[in-house]
Amino acid sequence: MTIASIDSYLEEHLDESIAELSELCAQPSISARNEGLLECAEMVRAMLDQRGFTTAIFATQGAPVVFGERKGRSDKTLIFYNHYDVQPPEPLELWETPPFEPTLRDGKLFARGVSDDKGHLLSRLFAIDALLATEGELPCTVKFVIEGEEETSSKNLEAFVRDHAALLAGDACIWEFGGVDHNDDPVEYLGLRGICYVELSVETANQDVHSGLGGSIFPNAAWRLVWALNSLKGPDETIRIPGFYDKVAPITPRTRELVAALPEVAEVYRQTYGLDHFLKGLTGGVDLQIESAHVPTCTICGLTSGYQGAGSKTVLPARASAKVDFRLVPHQDPAEIRALLRAHLDAQGFSDVMITDLGGNPACVTDPDDPFIKIVTSTAAEVYGRPMHIIPMSGGSGPNFMFNKYLNVPIATSGVGDPNSLAHAPNENMRLDLYLLGARHIAHILKAFGA
Amino acid sequence: MTIASIDSYLEEHLDESIAELSELCAQPSISARNEGLLECAEMVRAMLDQRGFTTAIFATQGAPVVFGERKGRSDKTLIFYNHYDVQPPEPLELWETPPFEPTLRDGKLFARGVSDDKGHLLSRLFAIDALLATEGELPCTVKFVIEGEEETSSKNLEAFVRDHAALLAGDACIWEFGGVDHNDDPVEYLGLRGICYVELSVETANQDVHSGLGGSIFPNAAWRLVWALNSLKGPDETIRIPGFYDKVAPITPRTRELVAALPEVAEVYRQTYGLDHFLKGLTGGVDLQIESAHVPTCTICGLTSGYQGAGSKTVLPARASAKVDFRLVPHQDPAEIRALLRAHLDAQGFSDVMITDLGGNPACVTDPDDPFIKIVTSTAAEVYGRPMHIIPMSGGSGPNFMFNKYLNVPIATSGVGDPNSLAHAPNENMRLDLYLLGARHIAHILKAFGA
Repeated sequence: MTIASIDSYLEEHLDESIAELSELCAQPSISARNEGLLECAEMVRAMLDQRGFTTAIFATQGAPVVFGERKGRSDKTLIFYNHYDVQPPEPLELWETPPFEPTLRDGKLFARGVSDDKGHLLSRLFAIDALLATEGELPCTVKFVIEGEEETSSKNLEAFVRDHAALLAGDACIWEFGGVDHNDDPVEYLGLRGICYVELSVETANQDVHSGLGGSIFPNAAWRLVWALNSLKGPDETIRIPGFYDKVAPITPRTRELVAALPEVAEVYRQTYGLDHFLKGLTGGVDLQIESAHVPTCTICGLTSGYQGAGSKTVLPARASAKVDFRLVPHQDPAEIRALLRAHLDAQGFSDVMITDLGGNPACVTDPDDPFIKIVTSTAAEVYGRPMHIIPMSGGSGPNFMFNKYLNVPIATSGVGDPNSLAHAPNENMRLDLYLLGARHIAHILKAFGA
Repeated sequence: MTIASIDSYLEEHLDESIAELSELCAQPSISARNEGLLECAEMVRAMLDQRGFTTAIFATQGAPVVFGERKGRSDKTLIFYNHYDVQPPEPLELWETPPFEPTLRDGKLFARGVSDDKGHLLSRLFAIDALLATEGELPCTVKFVIEGEEETSSKNLEAFVRDHAALLAGDACIWEFGGVDHNDDPVEYLGLRGICYVELSVETANQDVHSGLGGSIFPNAAWRLVWALNSLKGPDETIRIPGFYDKVAPITPRTRELVAALPEVAEVYRQTYGLDHFLKGLTGGVDLQIESAHVPTCTICGLTSGYQGAGSKTVLPARASAKVDFRLVPHQDPAEIRALLRAHLDAQGFSDVMITDLGGNPACVTDPDDPFIKIVTSTAAEVYGRPMHIIPMSGGSGPNFMFNKYLNVPIATSGVGDPNSLAHAPNENMRLDLYLLGARHIAHILKAFGA
C-alpha cells in the first residue's frame, strides 16, 4: 500500500483516536504521589493488546512498566519509549477546565498529561492502527517500553532496562516526545540534559514557636534554609558548589554550528512567559540557546515553611524545605553531584540541612550523523513539508542514557508537542493538527526504517 | 464581704465558667482570614450584657471592637484590654483534638484561642461574677475594650482608641495576658516589643515554566526571594538593613537588674522545644533573657513558592513570597522600618521584591515603680502565695502603646497563661488551676484598686 492510503486512514480516523486519548487522559496517573498508576498501566496494556501486541506489566520497586512487542515484516526492531505518568496538576485554580476532564477547545485537547506524554503515546498507536489497517502487518518489529515514573526521575527504570536488555533489544529508539517549534517547523532533539533532583529540609525544633519568644534566640528553620540555598547560587547565577563544574566540557564548534542554524526564540519566550529580561544579560541568538540547554543549572522548584495563608501569623517555623533540581550536562553524574552538595553544605556550616534524593540520571546525546537520524529527518520533511531543525540538546531530562548504555541504540525524537503545550503547567494542551502530523511522521518512519 | 467568700465563689463556680469559655472557643474567630469575627464579637457582647454592662459594638475599618462599661463603688476606673480573635489553627494535622472543639484533658482545656486570648477574657468575667455575687456591685468602674484584630497587628485599633479617648478614659489598664513562668511563679510584664509585619513577594513571569526550559535563562521567583531575604540577615543574626539599629538604646542597668532577678529559663526552653542550641552562642542567664526580649529581630514566619507536595515536580516558579516579622524595641517605628527595608532592597538590586504592610506598632513600657504595679504585684503575692517576678519587657507585641499614648494609663499584666500553653501553635491549651488563680488575682486587684 502507498503512503497516501496510510495518510488517508489517519485523517479519516482522527476523532476515534482522540476519543481513545481522552479516555486515557481522564485517568489520573500522578507518580509524585502514587495516584492511579496501576489503573493507568492496565489501560495502556489493554490498548496494546487490542493491536495484537504481546504484552506484560512488569513490577518494579516503584510504578510498573508496560511492555509490548509485535513482530513485523523486516528483521529490524524499533523501540518506542513512553511514559504513562503525569505531573501533579496543581495549582488547580489556574486550570480553565479540570485537568482530568479532557476538553476540546480551539483545535486543542486540554488535560494534564495530554502533551506529556499520553498524546505522544496514542499518536504512535494511531500510526500503528493505520499501518495494520492498510497493510495488515507492521514494516518492522515494534517494541514499547512505557514506564510510570518519568515525572519523578525514572528511579526504577535503569534496573528494569539493565535486567531486560535481551527482551528490549532493538536497532533504534524513538523517544517519548518531539514536535514542532514556535514556527511550526519540526525539530529533532539529539539529547537530553541529566538531572539530580533533591529536597533540602531543616528541622530546628520539635514545634513551631511564637515569634515573640524565639525570634532572637532560637534557630529558625526558614532562615537556615534560606542561607543554605543562598550558599548554592548567587544572583550572578554561578553555582558555588566546589567541583560542580569540573566535568563540564566546553561547547564544541559542531554544537554551536547546529544551534546557529536554529530559529530565534527570544521574542517568543518573552511574550509567552511575560518576561522582561533573561538572566546573565542574554538577549537572544546562539548564546541564549546555548545557555538554555547546554549548561548545568540549579533551580529552586518549590519552597515551603511556616505560615503561608492570608494575612499574618507570628510564628517561628520549626521546619522548612525546598525542592531543588540540578540539570546536568554530559559527564556530570547525579550521585557525584549529591555528594558534592553534601560536602558543600557541611563545609558552609549547614550540616543541619538534610538532603533527600528524589531521583536523577546523567545526560545522553545521539550522534547527529547517525543513519537513523537521517531517516527521521528526511521523513519529517515529507510529512511537515519543511526541513526538520536539529537541536543538539534539549533543556529537559529523561532516562535516555539507559537505552544508550544497555541497548546501544541511536535515539531520535518525533512527536506531537509544541512550545505552547504547557507541559508541567496549568492548561496543558495538545494541538489536533500536530497530533495528526505526529502520527503520520511515525508511520513514515516505520515504513522507511522497515524497508 | 471578705476576700475569702469571693475566693469560695470562684472555686464553686469553676465548671460553669469553663463551660462558658468552651462555648466561646468553639466559635472560630480567625482575623488573618476574616473568619467568624462578627459572630464572636456578638457572643462576647452578650456575655458583658448578662453581667449588667452597658455595651456597644463599634465598627472599624476592620473587625469590630466590643466595648462594655459598668459603674462601680469608687471613682476609680480600671480598663481591661482583651481580644476575641485567634491565630489560624494550621497545621491541623498536629492537633490531638480539633482546634475548635474545646476538650478537657489532663487538667487543661485545649482549643485554638483558649490561652490567647479567650481564657484571659473569661477569667476576668468570672472574677466580676464573683464580686457581683458576693458584694452586689463592683469596687470600681470597669471598662472592657475587646478588639478583633490583635493577631493581625491591631491595624484599626489606634484610630478607635484615639477617637474614643473620652469614652475609654480610666486610671489604669490590665493587659490581655499574664500568668506564671516555668516555676509557676506569677510574672508581671511591664512592656511589649513593637512589631512590623510584612509580606515580601516576587513575580518573575506570568506562569510557572518547565524547569528544563528556563532553569538557566529565566528569572526564578524563588531564587529572587531567597537572595532578597539573605540580604536582610545572615547567620550571624545581625540585621543588615542600613539604619535599622539607629534608634536602639543600650540596655539600662535597671533593666539588667530586673532581668537578673528572674529565674533561669534556658533548660526549660531546651526541653520544651527540643532545641540543641541557642543562637549567638548563648547558653542561658541574663544574656539569654536580654537577647530574647530586649533586642529587635527579623523572623521569617513563612515561605511559599512553586511545588510543595510529595516527591518531585520540575517547575520553575513564577511567584514566591515570605512572611517576615520585625520585633521592635522602644523608639523604633514600624513605618520607618518599612521605609528602611524598601530602601535596602532597592539598593541591593531587589526592586522586583514587593513589600505588603501586614500591620505593626511601636514598643511600649510601663514604669516598674508605678503605684498600680505595686497593687498588681502585692495582690499576686496573696493569691499565688509567692512573689511576682517583674519582667521589664515581653518578647511579644501588642497595641499597648495606644493606651499609653491616648489614655495615659499605667498598664499591668495578670492572666491565666503558662509557658506550655502553646499560643500560636497546635494544641494550644490553658491550665484550669491557673484559670482559677487568674480569676482570683483579678478579683483581688479590683478590690484593692477600688478601695
